[in-house]
Amino acid sequence: MRGAVLYAPGDIRVEHRPDPAIIEPTDAIIRLSATCICGSDLWPYRGVEKHDGPAPMGHEYVGVVEEVGGQVATIKPGQFVVGSFFASDNTCEICRSGYQSSCVHRVPMGAIGTQAQLARVPLADGTLVATPEPPRADLVPSLLAASDVLGTGWFGAVAAAVGPGKTVAVVGDGAVGLCAVLAAKRLGAERIIAMSRHAPRQELAREFGATDIVTERGDEGVTAIKDMTGGLGAHSVIEAVGTQESMTQAIRSTRPGGHVGYVGVAHGVELPGDELFFSHVHLHGGPAPVRQYLPELIGLIWNRDIDPGRVFDLTLPLDQSAEGYKAMDERRAIKVLLSP
Amino acid sequence: MRGAVLYAPGDIRVEHRPDPAIIEPTDAIIRLSATCICGSDLWPYRGVEKHDGPAPMGHEYVGVVEEVGGQVATIKPGQFVVGSFFASDNTCEICRSGYQSSCVHRVPMGAIGTQAQLARVPLADGTLVATPEPPRADLVPSLLAASDVLGTGWFGAVAAAVGPGKTVAVVGDGAVGLCAVLAAKRLGAERIIAMSRHAPRQELAREFGATDIVTERGDEGVTAIKDMTGGLGAHSVIEAVGTQESMTQAIRSTRPGGHVGYVGVAHGVELPGDELFFSHVHLHGGPAPVRQYLPELIGLIWNRDIDPGRVFDLTLPLDQSAEGYKAMDERRAIKVLLSP
Repeated sequence: MRGAVLYAPGDIRVEHRPDPAIIEPTDAIIRLSATCICGSDLWPYRGVEKHDGPAPMGHEYVGVVEEVGGQVATIKPGQFVVGSFFASDNTCEICRSGYQSSCVHRVPMGAIGTQAQLARVPLADGTLVATPEPPRADLVPSLLAASDVLGTGWFGAVAAAVGPGKTVAVVGDGAVGLCAVLAAKRLGAERIIAMSRHAPRQELAREFGATDIVTERGDEGVTAIKDMTGGLGAHSVIEAVGTQESMTQAIRSTRPGGHVGYVGVAHGVELPGDELFFSHVHLHGGPAPVRQYLPELIGLIWNRDIDPGRVFDLTLPLDQSAEGYKAMDERRAIKVLLSP
Repeated sequence: MRGAVLYAPGDIRVEHRPDPAIIEPTDAIIRLSATCICGSDLWPYRGVEKHDGPAPMGHEYVGVVEEVGGQVATIKPGQFVVGSFFASDNTCEICRSGYQSSCVHRVPMGAIGTQAQLARVPLADGTLVATPEPPRADLVPSLLAASDVLGTGWFGAVAAAVGPGKTVAVVGDGAVGLCAVLAAKRLGAERIIAMSRHAPRQELAREFGATDIVTERGDEGVTAIKDMTGGLGAHSVIEAVGTQESMTQAIRSTRPGGHVGYVGVAHGVELPGDELFFSHVHLHGGPAPVRQYLPELIGLIWNRDIDPGRVFDLTLPLDQSAEGYKAMDERRAIKVLLSP
C-alpha cells in the first residue's frame, strides 16, 4: 500500500509500506475512505517535537472494514467505521468513566499511521463505531472530522463546562478551535467569542455559531475579553493551540470560578502555580476521549444537524501529502483531506 | 489594643496597636473571642514569602460585634459572628456564583490582622455570619476552625469532586488536610486515605474519618496510592500543602478523569503543561470561598455533628503568640488557638 512517512522535519514522503495484517485477535483492518492532516502533525513536521524518522504519520481515519480478528464480535467486514486517535477497549474502568483516550490498554493510532490506504485498528470492538449504512460521499468529510477535530473541540467545550447562558471564548482558530465553536453552539452557549485574525477562519467561525470575533492576542486579547464581560472574564474558555501564550491567554480570560478546557497538545508550557491558584479557574483537558462522543456526533452528522467537514478547505490525493503539510504549515489551508 | 506583628522572619511581637475604628459605613468592629495561627502565616514567618515588616498578622477570627457602620443592615452589635479571611460583599456576580474569595470588592483580612483583641471587618453584611445565639465556650474552637481551615478543607473536597463511592487521598496532614478528611467523610467518600507520617495527626485523621494512612511521600507515595486503587489512582485528591512536591504528588496520585482540589497556597510551584495534559485530571483550587460554606458549617458545628476544633492542640494567650508560631513552625503543634 501507499502511506505517508516523515523522514525529517519538513520531509514528508508517500511511499510503499507493507500492507497491515491482523496481529492481535482483537484487530481489524480497514481500507481508508479518507484521512487527513492534523494540527498536531505539524509539531514533528516543524521539528518542535522530536521524531525518530522515518515514521509513519496520521491518526485520523474513516473507512471500510476489510478483515477482523477472531475475537472481534461487533465490528464486521463491509461496515463503514469511524475511530479515534487512541484505540481503546471501551470496557476498562477508565473507559467506562468516559476517558477512553486514557484507556489502560490504549494504543496510539499515530504510531500505526493512518495517512495510508490501509490501517490496522487495535481493539476494534472498543475503538470503532459503524455508521447505520455506508454514507453518501458528501458526509465523509464530516465523519472524518468526528475522528479527531470535532471530537476534540467537543471535549474542549465539555471540559470548559459550556452551557446555556454562558459566555465562551475560544483561543485558536485552527480546525479544533472552529469545531469548539460549533460544539459551544450545540451545547447552548449564549455568546461565543472566536479569537481569530484570519478572515476565512472568522467567516467559518461565524457560520459555526460565533457571535463575536476578537482579533487581539496575548494580554490585549485578555483585555478585550474582560471588556466584553463586565471586567470579569468569560465563563468558559477553550484553549486549542498548546503554547505558553495561548494557555496564559486562556487562563487570564476566564473569570474566577470559570472553566478552562484545554485541548491544544501542550508544548513547552509551564503554568505558574501561584497565578493558577489565585485565578480560581477550573482547568481540565488533555487528549480528547473522542470515542465517548462518537455515537452522538455521528448521529448529528448523519441527520445533517452539523457540518464539521467544512473545516476541510483543501482536498488532495494521498500522494500529494507533502503539499498538504506545506499548505497547513503556511496556514494556506485550515485542514487538508487526503484521498487514498 | 494588643496585637501580633511580624517584624522579620522568626520575629513575632505582641504589642500595642491602635484600636480599629469604622472607616467605611459598611464596616463592623468586632472584639475577638478567639483567633489563631494559620499554616499560611508560616510562609512569611519562615521568610519564604516576603513581607515588608512590621506587619500585623492573622486572618482567622470569631468574636462579638461591638459597633457597625451606618450602612450595615443585618449584622448587629452583640451578635457572635464568624467571618472568612477575605471580606466580601456577597452580592457581586462572582460572589453569587460561590466564589466570595474572588469578590470584586474583596479585602484581605490578613492585611488588617486578626491576631489581636479587636478587628475592623469590611463589608460586614456580606462577610460575617452570626450564630443563632452566643455559643457555649466549648463550641468556640470549632467555630474558629470554620473561619479558615475547615472551610478551606471543605472547598478542597468540593473542588476534588468528593462524593459517595469515591476513593479520596489527602496530601498534607496540617489542620487543612485534617479538615479535608472530615469534609470528605461528610461528603460521603467511601475510602479516605490520609498521607501522614506523624502519629498524633494520623490518629486525628482516623477520628475525622480516614480509612487508611499512607506514610510514604513523593513518588513512593504515588506508588502506594496506585497500589491501593488497582493501578489507576484515586478519584479525588486534595492537596493541602502548596509545594512543588505536594502538587506533583497530588496530580500523579489521581486517575485519568479524576479531580485534584488544591488549597495549599502555592509557593514556587511550576506545573509542566505536557504532564498535566496527559494526566487527564481536573484541577481546581485557590483561596477557599469559605463564606459560601459558613452557614452550613456553622449549622453542623452548632448541632455538634462535627468537631473540627479538635485541630487546635495548643491554646495560648495572645501575648504568647511568638511561642505559638514557634510550636507550629517546629511541628510541635498542629494548630495554635490564641486567646485575646
